[in-house]
Amino acid sequence: MAVTLLVCTTCRAGLPVEEGTPCPGLRLHDLLAEGVPEGVTLRPVECLSACSQGSAVALSAPGRWTYVYGRLTEADAPDILAGAALYAQSADGIVPWRDRPTVFRKNSIARIPPLEVSA
Amino acid sequence: MAVTLLVCTTCRAGLPVEEGTPCPGLRLHDLLAEGVPEGVTLRPVECLSACSQGSAVALSAPGRWTYVYGRLTEADAPDILAGAALYAQSADGIVPWRDRPTVFRKNSIARIPPLEVSA
Repeated sequence: MAVTLLVCTTCRAGLPVEEGTPCPGLRLHDLLAEGVPEGVTLRPVECLSACSQGSAVALSAPGRWTYVYGRLTEADAPDILAGAALYAQSADGIVPWRDRPTVFRKNSIARIPPLEVSA
Repeated sequence: MAVTLLVCTTCRAGLPVEEGTPCPGLRLHDLLAEGVPEGVTLRPVECLSACSQGSAVALSAPGRWTYVYGRLTEADAPDILAGAALYAQSADGIVPWRDRPTVFRKNSIARIPPLEVSA
């Protein structure tokens, strides 16, 4: 089933943003767009409500755990994409700890279990 | 569709927990269990990965935004239940800001949009 990499494109990451320049969240989104792994769909979101811990992204798919990560910068883009690929290859969204990129190990904001099919 | 109130029952909320005593997350869960609103299912979860911002809960339902809240205590139980009832009454999980309990306004950790049906 399709995996979605959600990126908050309104995140200012606690920084002042000059008028007319893209905010950190949008810049991160555009950088991620250059290397989206197979089986993953990139989706911009206006505010993941993690403003105090931005930039933020989330990985989600039907039947899998959803993971939210924060405190991300453009320098983390390669690791975010590598982590997204591993998530896409997993059955339930849970990537073994030893395989997770360091940026995911250190910057988890929350995870949410898959909704029960009967729910 | 069914609304789920997820409660992290392993959360220590950054506090030492004496052996044999329930952790803050489990105590919050048990308190919430006493007044679950109509249309809401309470579901214990082992770790929402919001450990540094516990205790944590999440509200989720198919086709709605998922909201994660943290820094919660047992004293917040009535407001969490009131917020869960408002979430259950909403169409898309978005409760108007003015109606949200203060504890939800101040302690949002993240929100995740509903997955596309076609995803």
